Amino acid sequence: MITVPEARKLIHENGLQTKVEMMFLNAAYGFVLAEPVLSPIDTPPFDQSAMDGYAFSFETWDGKSDLFLNGEVQAGNYLAQNLKPNEAIRIFTGAALPLGANTVVIQENVIKNGKYISINDDKLIKGSNVRLQGSQTKNGEIALPEGHYLSPASISFLAGLGIDKVKVYSNPVISIIVTGKELIKPGEAMSKGKIYESNSLGLSAALGQMNIVPASVEMVDDDEDKITNAINNQLSSDIIILSGGVSVGDYDFVISSLQKCAVKEIFHKVKQKPGKPFYFGKHQQTLVFGLPGNPASVLTCFYEYVANAISSFIKKEYFKKISLPLSNDYKKKPGMTFFLKGKTKLNEVSILENQASYLLNSFAVADCIIELEEDKEQFLKGEMVEVLMID
Amino acid sequence: MITVPEARKLIHENGLQTKVEMMFLNAAYGFVLAEPVLSPIDTPPFDQSAMDGYAFSFETWDGKSDLFLNGEVQAGNYLAQNLKPNEAIRIFTGAALPLGANTVVIQENVIKNGKYISINDDKLIKGSNVRLQGSQTKNGEIALPEGHYLSPASISFLAGLGIDKVKVYSNPVISIIVTGKELIKPGEAMSKGKIYESNSLGLSAALGQMNIVPASVEMVDDDEDKITNAINNQLSSDIIILSGGVSVGDYDFVISSLQKCAVKEIFHKVKQKPGKPFYFGKHQQTLVFGLPGNPASVLTCFYEYVANAISSFIKKEYFKKISLPLSNDYKKKPGMTFFLKGKTKLNEVSILENQASYLLNSFAVADCIIELEEDKEQFLKGEMVEVLMID
Repeated sequence: MITVPEARKLIHENGLQTKVEMMFLNAAYGFVLAEPVLSPIDTPPFDQSAMDGYAFSFETWDGKSDLFLNGEVQAGNYLAQNLKPNEAIRIFTGAALPLGANTVVIQENVIKNGKYISINDDKLIKGSNVRLQGSQTKNGEIALPEGHYLSPASISFLAGLGIDKVKVYSNPVISIIVTGKELIKPGEAMSKGKIYESNSLGLSAALGQMNIVPASVEMVDDDEDKITNAINNQLSSDIIILSGGVSVGDYDFVISSLQKCAVKEIFHKVKQKPGKPFYFGKHQQTLVFGLPGNPASVLTCFYEYVANAISSFIKKEYFKKISLPLSNDYKKKPGMTFFLKGKTKLNEVSILENQASYLLNSFAVADCIIELEEDKEQFLKGEMVEVLMID
Repeated sequence: MITVPEARKLIHENGLQTKVEMMFLNAAYGFVLAEPVLSPIDTPPFDQSAMDGYAFSFETWDGKSDLFLNGEVQAGNYLAQNLKPNEAIRIFTGAALPLGANTVVIQENVIKNGKYISINDDKLIKGSNVRLQGSQTKNGEIALPEGHYLSPASISFLAGLGIDKVKVYSNPVISIIVTGKELIKPGEAMSKGKIYESNSLGLSAALGQMNIVPASVEMVDDDEDKITNAINNQLSSDIIILSGGVSVGDYDFVISSLQKCAVKEIFHKVKQKPGKPFYFGKHQQTLVFGLPGNPASVLTCFYEYVANAISSFIKKEYFKKISLPLSNDYKKKPGMTFFLKGKTKLNEVSILENQASYLLNSFAVADCIIELEEDKEQFLKGEMVEVLMID
């Protein structure tokens, strides 16, 4: 049986691959750039008025004469004519300055006399109220680097450069296989000895937190052939997540089925509670996680291990680890890392009641998982502990 | 012109409605319960073995005799027979205890002699290794209260109770209308005077952060009839978000179009930078936000105002406000609240460069918006400021 840090290291070392794909920008929110994006244009693409007002040439103006009003340009239009000295044009926010103009006086600082305007603005200098071409990005410059997370503002920024496709790190193709003879689907009638299957819904929702929809979700009976078949069908996935059947009981067929599918075991069993029978293996580039069937073990192993493997695949971390002081004393057995459902408030974290691995009511109100290290027995109020935020 | 706190108050007072709907549990991740969920069953639904081992009746055992092995029960099956005194059955994790049994001894603490087992476990007490029926939830009890956020663990928990539908607060129906004669779509060829439309993509992605897909996205020319028509078509939405055309220039038709559509103005113009021409109105229950067209103003007004209105509709806050010390001095004009793109690191926040409202390159790397209050001019390094996290 290996330790939690050893398990983490083995998953990290075996899970370093990524995939990339071209994606339409309007679908790319939440992904990470797999190559730098160069700006294909200057932005603004032309000298642009920042205000509603009048554009003219600052240098050829004597600072006092009225200017002849020779036209108008609205945002979206372009005035091909050259502005002559002592001429101005009416201009609106976002419109391109005509050739010959380099300054805009805002409409509030102008008196209009028929076809002439008189400027009344002491602070006006060359370039006032003009956004220069290329002042945001220049053609050919790196707009955003490889590894950049595409936030809404990043999407908007790239759209403004005219970009409609980006190369991003792909989401992994993930298959979920839940095993158990005792499982029936929520909504179906209960019969004695059965329980409602909940792990596939919990796992799918947790993948949803990472912007991922599982490619396939399957419920399989405790039958070696059926489980073997289900795994074989999903070996082209990037990641297979199994739940249940990973212990060594008479009806636990997941481990033997994985062997039949030539999945190479990397480890089986970790010194942790919950989730001791946790399994990790690999078939070519496919990562295979065997999670114990208890709902709390499933989610704990997902957040503590599977999520890390996915994060390194998509190059984006979703669940942050922080240190917080405990709000209460806690005593545990040594020799096992404990993962406890917790709730943060202000600057501390409480260990919730009902920690048993089959209980989910505490997990439902938890916002974090508290990690208590293997060797230690006694934890005191105020002591700093590692906390994985899962909300 | 009103202040930022006044604008917030008016939006809050006018945006108090919610809608509810029944939703399949497998689609309900990220929503908030609109009514308490009562458990329709006990869970576990029966006394259940927590381990692989042997079940027997603790009281009728003399503490030393071997027990006669009278059958086996796998998880998912049910043994109808009554266990007699001094009998045991082979049992597996998750399986139902037969009538007459109340205790499980784990297989590691048993010696098997043909049809008999001999127990070697000093610590065994009545009920050992048994999860009692109803020990997680009892039939008819409140499993989760109204207002509970459906995290992945909550989904898994409810699925385990056999629940497949829940009543949740609905997402609002949101329509986006971007206006501007100068706009062309990303991917299209550039022509002089035009710019690429980016606000609809930025807004859609920001809604995506809140688990919402806009119901409609439209790009409309600067033409009063066309804008009026577009607004009229969307008045059955819960929220309309417009961008551009909200100033009072000769080609700004949004305000007059809203009047024609009988949208009641609640305020227009706020003492803030960016986003001074920000408009808010209401038509029956429909909230209408008119955002200035500059990309940074659009996102700033979205996160600072529109997101709050959505949060109160769906009863879930997505963007948290915290206080952090500034990493640098900053001087601003008094009389305006400033919203600045910021980046947090460790326990401080930096004001990014390139704050102009038409620049998005700083927004693309920001993880927060820093609010600098209206009346104050000088902010010093180390001073606490309000920070809205947007990542």
